[in-house]
Amino acid sequence: MEDIDVNALLIGGKSENGELFKSLLGRLIDEHLGWRQNYMPQDRPLISADEQASPAFQKTVQKLKDVMEELSVRMRADSVPWESPRYWGHMNSETLTPALLGYYFGMLWNENNVSYEGSPATSLLEEEVGMDFARLFSFPNGWGHICADGSIANLEALWYARNVKSLPLAMKEVKPELVAGKSDWELLNMPTEEIIDLMSSLSEVDLDLVKRKSARSGKRIEDLGKWIIPATKHYSWLKAADITGVGMDNVIMIPVDEHYRMKIDDLEKTIEDLATQKIPVLGVVGVVGTTEEGAIDHIDKICALRKSFAKKGINFYLHADCAYGGYARSIILDSNYDVIPYADLEHELRQNNVFQDPSNTISRDDYEALKALEDVDSVTVDPHKMGYVPYTAGGIAIKDVRMRNAISYFASYVFDKTIDPPVQIGPYILEGSKAGAAAAAVWATHRVLPVNITGYGRVIGRSIEGARNFYKFMSELEVEVEGTKVEAHTIYYPDFNMVDWVFNVEGNKDLDAMNRLNQNFFIQSSIYSGMDYLKPILTSHTDFTREEYGDSCLGFIRQIGITSPWEEGSHLTTLRASAMNLMMYDAKDFAAYKVKLTEAIKEVLKPCLNTK
Amino acid sequence: MEDIDVNALLIGGKSENGELFKSLLGRLIDEHLGWRQNYMPQDRPLISADEQASPAFQKTVQKLKDVMEELSVRMRADSVPWESPRYWGHMNSETLTPALLGYYFGMLWNENNVSYEGSPATSLLEEEVGMDFARLFSFPNGWGHICADGSIANLEALWYARNVKSLPLAMKEVKPELVAGKSDWELLNMPTEEIIDLMSSLSEVDLDLVKRKSARSGKRIEDLGKWIIPATKHYSWLKAADITGVGMDNVIMIPVDEHYRMKIDDLEKTIEDLATQKIPVLGVVGVVGTTEEGAIDHIDKICALRKSFAKKGINFYLHADCAYGGYARSIILDSNYDVIPYADLEHELRQNNVFQDPSNTISRDDYEALKALEDVDSVTVDPHKMGYVPYTAGGIAIKDVRMRNAISYFASYVFDKTIDPPVQIGPYILEGSKAGAAAAAVWATHRVLPVNITGYGRVIGRSIEGARNFYKFMSELEVEVEGTKVEAHTIYYPDFNMVDWVFNVEGNKDLDAMNRLNQNFFIQSSIYSGMDYLKPILTSHTDFTREEYGDSCLGFIRQIGITSPWEEGSHLTTLRASAMNLMMYDAKDFAAYKVKLTEAIKEVLKPCLNTK
Repeated sequence: MEDIDVNALLIGGKSENGELFKSLLGRLIDEHLGWRQNYMPQDRPLISADEQASPAFQKTVQKLKDVMEELSVRMRADSVPWESPRYWGHMNSETLTPALLGYYFGMLWNENNVSYEGSPATSLLEEEVGMDFARLFSFPNGWGHICADGSIANLEALWYARNVKSLPLAMKEVKPELVAGKSDWELLNMPTEEIIDLMSSLSEVDLDLVKRKSARSGKRIEDLGKWIIPATKHYSWLKAADITGVGMDNVIMIPVDEHYRMKIDDLEKTIEDLATQKIPVLGVVGVVGTTEEGAIDHIDKICALRKSFAKKGINFYLHADCAYGGYARSIILDSNYDVIPYADLEHELRQNNVFQDPSNTISRDDYEALKALEDVDSVTVDPHKMGYVPYTAGGIAIKDVRMRNAISYFASYVFDKTIDPPVQIGPYILEGSKAGAAAAAVWATHRVLPVNITGYGRVIGRSIEGARNFYKFMSELEVEVEGTKVEAHTIYYPDFNMVDWVFNVEGNKDLDAMNRLNQNFFIQSSIYSGMDYLKPILTSHTDFTREEYGDSCLGFIRQIGITSPWEEGSHLTTLRASAMNLMMYDAKDFAAYKVKLTEAIKEVLKPCLNTK
Repeated sequence: MEDIDVNALLIGGKSENGELFKSLLGRLIDEHLGWRQNYMPQDRPLISADEQASPAFQKTVQKLKDVMEELSVRMRADSVPWESPRYWGHMNSETLTPALLGYYFGMLWNENNVSYEGSPATSLLEEEVGMDFARLFSFPNGWGHICADGSIANLEALWYARNVKSLPLAMKEVKPELVAGKSDWELLNMPTEEIIDLMSSLSEVDLDLVKRKSARSGKRIEDLGKWIIPATKHYSWLKAADITGVGMDNVIMIPVDEHYRMKIDDLEKTIEDLATQKIPVLGVVGVVGTTEEGAIDHIDKICALRKSFAKKGINFYLHADCAYGGYARSIILDSNYDVIPYADLEHELRQNNVFQDPSNTISRDDYEALKALEDVDSVTVDPHKMGYVPYTAGGIAIKDVRMRNAISYFASYVFDKTIDPPVQIGPYILEGSKAGAAAAAVWATHRVLPVNITGYGRVIGRSIEGARNFYKFMSELEVEVEGTKVEAHTIYYPDFNMVDWVFNVEGNKDLDAMNRLNQNFFIQSSIYSGMDYLKPILTSHTDFTREEYGDSCLGFIRQIGITSPWEEGSHLTTLRASAMNLMMYDAKDFAAYKVKLTEAIKEVLKPCLNTK
């Protein structure tokens, strides 16, 4: 087996591989410059050495230098050292070298993947990336593409769901024989697969007519029913319901359990109640890697539920929002992209050096959830999050490539049907112009690190292991600051790589006091109290409001001795770390940073305790 | 006046400034590497020299090199030399050095402008860019931001229109006293400004309640009326109507005249007819720089029409799609960003060396249209098109910053209301995660080249002048190929920088034969007949179908002697050049390329004439 050292794919927190990065980049840039020079080499340069020596040229260069220097000063003064093991905050980190090099190199060509003619090199790369996404989720007939970001991917998914689910009603208008004998309730409850089959049986002309009568027309969107999401949802889901005209009135949020996973019983009951009222379910969203907790919903149980409802004639679209956690599925794929049986997983994890500490593994719950992604209709997956690719590179994958036709547009002047390009992305996406450079970045990274246990599996493993190290550290931490004892308490065992915790003064039973302490700690360890570059520890925070999260954190609060009532308006302020750093998996290195972080926490706590 | 030499801001078609680019980039990268090293300099590197020498590390570097080399081969084999004066095709070109450097440099920090905490440096840069956009369109109380692309900006604009126009109905439900005595017709016909004033008078709590009852709820979207666009529209407008639930059934297309500008009389009549039927107009879109013709709609006349309809109690949202042409407005702004009176324009053009040939100017029509942009509600403007910034960097500007509140989302966990960041972009945009690097790119470019006649005015001037040189060349071109005389005919005098033309065999009167010739020419001068890198001239094409374009090209067809009927199913195939090249403004250089291009055209025509 080929051995990959992920450390060779980072610039490094201390720029350890800075020279390597520069030398690789230099070669790529030279290759581009030579390409320009050698297109029609008989054409002479239009900028002469004489002009380059002229005062106006020189003055412009000086201005350019001044502006770039100002940019440099501002970036260095205001930015945050994500790459340092002192950063335990937002979903930000350094990125992988192949991604950076690919983005840079691709950008020199400035291709636009909206049309093949505008991107003959990078459209093909994006198509390959789309196939990688399909492999990652075990969609043998799938397809995918790069998006601006996860919010856009989620919006595209809801657009898919809305338009696909509206097709049967449109077929009834245009080709009633296709859906003869079906009631409106039945039409609104057809399984995605069956709709796609019917759609694919249409002639091109009929398909256009049906599409014109689908939700695309603006008609009967409200009839399509409810869009169900977990309470941990990213806010982009509300925005997507707003934008698509599905409407926030049609969004239902399902409570989450103490692991911050959607409660399956509640989901089941909600769908049953709706069915009793003859209200269809447009779709359900499960989340893999929630924004604030990194929680992994029971996708397997949601899929099982879908199957059992199907037997009762109730069918809905199923989307998995894996914007954050999607790449984690690479851990359970072998080098052929086949799912590793759970019985073999531990062996494979060891064989592939996914975890340093052999006691680390992937829980059965998480494994089953990740495995079950093969049964959903579409998935959001962002290379610019756990793919360690620079912004922007979001992504989406669909289980059945034929579903593209439910949302496609072929503008006559952009997409000439008389010519047959090897690949077309533009007609099948929500966006328009898009960077070919992003495709080059993701493509190059996927070639170095395949989306399976031999490649990305190791990257994700490092992050998970780092999170567990941090979790253990925080679970055990107790410090004394000027005579006051402060304890740290982690809130849940991380499904993935996110750790939420609170500090509490020993013996304190008051929720407000504890919330204030943690809010203060956040302020003191973030940009809100001065330059991040000068802080010894950096973190982020979140709030679990009773309104949104119900009682999911109540057990925790009681367990740590808080006696304040948990009532309307209550909330728990927590500190929050997306443990994206790729160096803290190492036990020895983490041990060194435990000392540094403990010192830093004591230093930061000092002013927090004084400003009650 | 400061003299800027635009040539110093390009890598150059023959990499003339390649060394300069590399040296500026090298310094920026070093500054970043030093920043990493010097955050908490007491922290030791975690990647040792020993590890760097290890076999696994070295093997990984070799793999990285191999992948990057494969990427390089593919990019060089398949890409298109946009930067060459032999490229006269799509909206693609080389980009400005400050934009490339800013993008590269910004990407090293990987900031995410969705939240201030994720981008303390680049959020501020994006806010400044937004103010630049506002200045460009003379919106003293305006605001703007960078988008993924023009399609997303257009979608955001329609989302704005839909939600803003629905607010009065929502106010009637929540705070009826605000709109007391108004009929539904009057509520659906309130001017944007008045709605924003009313919205701004609400308390935060009431505003939230009103927004919940707006189009955001999913209710009564169809009542909002029709969305009116010109026949030359970009297909993103149909997609936006689909996505937002406004619906394609509610889109009306207005025919265009022989200059490919929306017919104002038809627009007026359409709105009148709708009013007679008591159907409201949700909004109207004018285009500055149409996708296929570079045409500039009479924005001034649309604004005048809006004023006169307002007197009759008919009001609609007005958006200008300046995705392509927006930066052209910099030509009519002086160094204080004030609009230059038309009487002074010629003098200023000369003072600022906007055109080399003093007979070149900006037509009164185009001037008035650009000037009138100050009266629209919102504008799409893409730095990655005529801003010569790499993909992706689209943009949108709104006239009244308060309008943001009609679409905003404050997710409690992303946007903590108890802390007050200096700038927040995320709550007010359609997208989520977005590259801070894009902001750094546009910011740096705008600092070197202000969006007025002293900066971008010269860049845009070069492009327009290049287009006019090409237009003149094509208008006069006649070649003989193996005994056959072929004439070139340009279709319209370019409003902006786009030239559409056809080749026709002398004496041919048959439309189909002419279309075939031009389709063949396109195939022969594009990727569809082999590697672009080997072609001596490169172009793109488009189709004017009677269905979409009506009779707008009929006068032209007859004038060049085509006698075929212009009937259902007829279309005109044309060749099309976005003259984005920034070197072809120069008379001497263009003269040299006239010879090269004439030879190239003859060479390409040869196989086209043989394959009738």
